Amino acid sequence: MSLQTVAKQFVDLCNQGKNFDAMHSMYAPTIVSVEGDGSETSGKGPVIKKSEVWQGKNTVQGEKVRGPFFNGPDQFAVYYTFEDTPKSTGKRVSIEEVGVYTVKDDKITREQFFFDVALSGGAR
Amino acid sequence: MSLQTVAKQFVDLCNQGKNFDAMHSMYAPTIVSVEGDGSETSGKGPVIKKSEVWQGKNTVQGEKVRGPFFNGPDQFAVYYTFEDTPKSTGKRVSIEEVGVYTVKDDKITREQFFFDVALSGGAR
Repeated sequence: MSLQTVAKQFVDLCNQGKNFDAMHSMYAPTIVSVEGDGSETSGKGPVIKKSEVWQGKNTVQGEKVRGPFFNGPDQFAVYYTFEDTPKSTGKRVSIEEVGVYTVKDDKITREQFFFDVALSGGAR
Repeated sequence: MSLQTVAKQFVDLCNQGKNFDAMHSMYAPTIVSVEGDGSETSGKGPVIKKSEVWQGKNTVQGEKVRGPFFNGPDQFAVYYTFEDTPKSTGKRVSIEEVGVYTVKDDKITREQFFFDVALSGGAR
């Protein structure tokens, strides 16, 4: 597949609410995930677990993904907006986020999330 | 200044239509600019010239910048939307774009643009 095909598939799955299907089918075994605060998680299992833990603490009312947007031979970016209610506060918030993804051999090998300051390191 | 202060200043200037003021005041002398097709331009003068050449070929009707969004100690991202009419076609188009910026010593040392495929390497 081309980078474009992989990226389009990823965005389509996310826009259908199938984020975990995207992770399971498209993450490389050695994926590295970089959070807003710069902290890294390595390995497909731990990276998916991180999202599962976050999902358990939040109720997502809606998610929209713009993109993919491309740079060079192996990277794409997306712009996320979603409505979320953290279970800890019960207060609905609007979240914006940029994700930058690196693709090798049709799998996502690195993801890097950019957040609002207030949410850095805490949103996911 | 903090990364947050630099990034906020950059976004504010762009949202006021003062993109060239932002470039002149915030680019490092050694800045590297990476276009959607992966091509690189080095040095503050050549990078600003690149934007001047692009601007000369386009009429921008409006620009909005969302962000800044942060990752780690020295990077921020923004999401651009703008309405543009290339002088070559006279046909108005909507453009979306993600920019990733690296900051050192309060100056932007690297910028990386992510585009729609159709526009990669050709939009700017």
